Amino acid sequence: MNISLLTDFYELTMMQGYFFYCPDEEGVFEMFFRRQPFEGGYAIFAGLWPLLDALGGLKFTADDIAYLESLNAFKNEFLEYLKDFSFRGDVYSVPEGTAVFPNEPLVRVHGSLMEAQLVESMLLNFINFQSIIATKTARIAAVAGDRPVMEFGLRRAQGVDGALSAARAAFIGGAGSTSNTMAGKLYGIPVSGTMAHSWVMNFSSELEAFEKYTEIYPDRCVLLVDTFDTLKSGIPNAIVVFSELRKKNPPLMAVRIDSGDLEYLSKKARKMLDGAGLPDVKIFVSSDLDEWIMRQLIQSGAPIDAWGVGTRMITGWNDPALTGVYKIVAKKGDGGFEPRIKISNQAEKITNPGVKNVMRFYDGKGVMLADLIHLEEEAEDLRKLVDRRKPIRFNHPATDYAKFTLFEYGSANTLIEPVMMQGEIMKERPTLQEIREYRQRQVDLLDATFKRLLNPHIYKISLSDALKGMKSGMIRSIRDTNA
Amino acid sequence: MNISLLTDFYELTMMQGYFFYCPDEEGVFEMFFRRQPFEGGYAIFAGLWPLLDALGGLKFTADDIAYLESLNAFKNEFLEYLKDFSFRGDVYSVPEGTAVFPNEPLVRVHGSLMEAQLVESMLLNFINFQSIIATKTARIAAVAGDRPVMEFGLRRAQGVDGALSAARAAFIGGAGSTSNTMAGKLYGIPVSGTMAHSWVMNFSSELEAFEKYTEIYPDRCVLLVDTFDTLKSGIPNAIVVFSELRKKNPPLMAVRIDSGDLEYLSKKARKMLDGAGLPDVKIFVSSDLDEWIMRQLIQSGAPIDAWGVGTRMITGWNDPALTGVYKIVAKKGDGGFEPRIKISNQAEKITNPGVKNVMRFYDGKGVMLADLIHLEEEAEDLRKLVDRRKPIRFNHPATDYAKFTLFEYGSANTLIEPVMMQGEIMKERPTLQEIREYRQRQVDLLDATFKRLLNPHIYKISLSDALKGMKSGMIRSIRDTNA
Repeated sequence: MNISLLTDFYELTMMQGYFFYCPDEEGVFEMFFRRQPFEGGYAIFAGLWPLLDALGGLKFTADDIAYLESLNAFKNEFLEYLKDFSFRGDVYSVPEGTAVFPNEPLVRVHGSLMEAQLVESMLLNFINFQSIIATKTARIAAVAGDRPVMEFGLRRAQGVDGALSAARAAFIGGAGSTSNTMAGKLYGIPVSGTMAHSWVMNFSSELEAFEKYTEIYPDRCVLLVDTFDTLKSGIPNAIVVFSELRKKNPPLMAVRIDSGDLEYLSKKARKMLDGAGLPDVKIFVSSDLDEWIMRQLIQSGAPIDAWGVGTRMITGWNDPALTGVYKIVAKKGDGGFEPRIKISNQAEKITNPGVKNVMRFYDGKGVMLADLIHLEEEAEDLRKLVDRRKPIRFNHPATDYAKFTLFEYGSANTLIEPVMMQGEIMKERPTLQEIREYRQRQVDLLDATFKRLLNPHIYKISLSDALKGMKSGMIRSIRDTNA
Repeated sequence: MNISLLTDFYELTMMQGYFFYCPDEEGVFEMFFRRQPFEGGYAIFAGLWPLLDALGGLKFTADDIAYLESLNAFKNEFLEYLKDFSFRGDVYSVPEGTAVFPNEPLVRVHGSLMEAQLVESMLLNFINFQSIIATKTARIAAVAGDRPVMEFGLRRAQGVDGALSAARAAFIGGAGSTSNTMAGKLYGIPVSGTMAHSWVMNFSSELEAFEKYTEIYPDRCVLLVDTFDTLKSGIPNAIVVFSELRKKNPPLMAVRIDSGDLEYLSKKARKMLDGAGLPDVKIFVSSDLDEWIMRQLIQSGAPIDAWGVGTRMITGWNDPALTGVYKIVAKKGDGGFEPRIKISNQAEKITNPGVKNVMRFYDGKGVMLADLIHLEEEAEDLRKLVDRRKPIRFNHPATDYAKFTLFEYGSANTLIEPVMMQGEIMKERPTLQEIREYRQRQVDLLDATFKRLLNPHIYKISLSDALKGMKSGMIRSIRDTNA
């Protein structure tokens, strides 16, 4: 599917404006988000590789051009230009799976104003969505610990790609499998599934339904036990079937409870199974689960071995969109990039100007301490300071009086790296499994206080002295001009 | 894009089970939802035509089959069968754009167990998503009244199709245009857009940015006025530009305010524009709008002429998924369809058995009174009673003691109609505009008490005597069997 028109109409009208007024001008745009989703302590960055593939494939077909022509907003010269358009910009980004925080740059696009403006909507769509789902899933997976999380959200997802891209993002975030067969095929995610109530209802009895299922799937036998009555019918019938099946030493025997009080039912079911000599039969649960309900169940000692999570993971539920934005931060002038700033009456809506990167500092054990947003032109000097473990000054991004000096740290690294040059991907493509493992290592590097579900510690995102000085100077100068 | 594998893995494993155990069995599945979204008084049904197109195109490619084979869950005979599979079932549905309510059947699929089971996930994905967005938009559009709503959600939508399908559903729900150019092309929705802050920041001054925009788009001139300072800079510069432009009598002149307090700013801006002799310049606003904020602004007398609504419409925001489910309600036996029921310890989770339709009753002015769920086999008798305006009995779907008789009504019609027979669409395809107008007429037929945003009147969805009797009998019989 060609998605080159997946852009806000104003990107195209602005693009035409640049085409006529300033076709050779180049700029740098930056993507960041302002508010931590889920009132959580961190977010997981995702969606980069699908975005890079989409950028690489941008191309307006004859059909697209004919449609644009029909809108009576575009001149022939511009439409002619679009015929041969492709994205030739440079993209810099933090890696997929990185733990990220508000206000720090995550992706930079360097290119002609035309191309960098055009891709705004698509970039935000891809990154905002996959990041919110990866973040939600990371919260859920952190609660689940080593009990597998199965993504069951297809039927409640927001459309075809709402299911596919979210399955990908959920896998990055920590889900171990998906029920979505197409996501399994496209992304190589393990697929999992049990049975529906309709299976049970299609046989003359629950017992027959279980027996038939076991006959055809002896190796992946998960029986749904709540079609009639979990404790009076489902579990007793499952015991009959598994008592027979266990003689074949199957790799997996489990029941799934999909309704009712999951703590009460799982505890009773566990006792009944154990009492029948079936301690090896696992208990899976599903039914409107999220990180809060799962945590409660675990704290209550519910003997649950795996979780099927759907609606509340696949949609983000209580925070269905990351509030990522894409702002111009620099324009190419005679002497290189000149910073741009977006002023606002709301201090927290003023952007950080200039071409920037993020340096992340760790303690001696490798645990994250704080992130420093700095200008790319400072990078070399900063690196020298860091190599000698010199103290580094951190400035609050909005207020003048909150600052601190980091005297002791173990190491530091730079988060944003080049991934696409002149429209060509120039970084080796990680597998989805590698991204998932990287995400796990990132979460492991976060102190537990940042991972609290409720009221987490706020991770410090600060500006370097040079960036802070430049920003303050630009604000003063604009305020003076407009005063 | 072939989406035949967009199905939960368990649909395929169950399908294989049916293939071996009961390949000739046929059944009827029904889609309905249990809970009114947004704590509102009605929902708008959407997503049907895209679903029918997808069902018509179901086909497993060699690639799909190879993938399934690699999962080691499917036998060769079944995979061979899939190679020639197509959906040959019948689909019955309420029309897109219908105002619908919890627990009433919305879509029925009649077919082999295999095909009817396979399409569950896809059907729910399409209908759940588009219905939640059409419903949210209908709430927003109802508040907006005759002030246009522009859908601006692409950048915050849940993926590519999360943006496209939602743009379609939002148009049905009452949005007048979309910013999503691809949705404009695919669905013929009018596209709209203004300018971004980056446009303003790309010129040497705000005034120059406005002048250049007016020069190239004199006929669609909406100036974004909050890049520096709405009242000190944006509006004064817009006044300069529009005072000149108005001499050309352009069809549209407007400012857009995208941040800050929208009531305060719009009132001040209106005064400044009027004072400058520009009462014809419209005021557009955007910035995290939803039905609640819009209602507050209107009640406060904010002089707003059009609304750009993004995140909170395109994602459903506080209710990102309709809780639609798909349950087997009948199986074909020797004597026709035999009803099936799903029992649960929770009374409201017990399904309504049998092949059913919905009859909607109206008062003499055509205002909706109540819906009656009945068995298809009752349809003719009911129609005769209705034609003679005989009293009709309504039974509560869950409790036995809540019932009433409707003595007076003006008319009644049947909601569910055949739309696909043996896999072929057999209903004339309405245009999206026709669906949108039908939705508007549906909302007009609802008494205002059902349209309150807060604590709306609950519309009555009841069972016919025959259906109620059958349901009670089946529950008793199952309880007795399992007791």
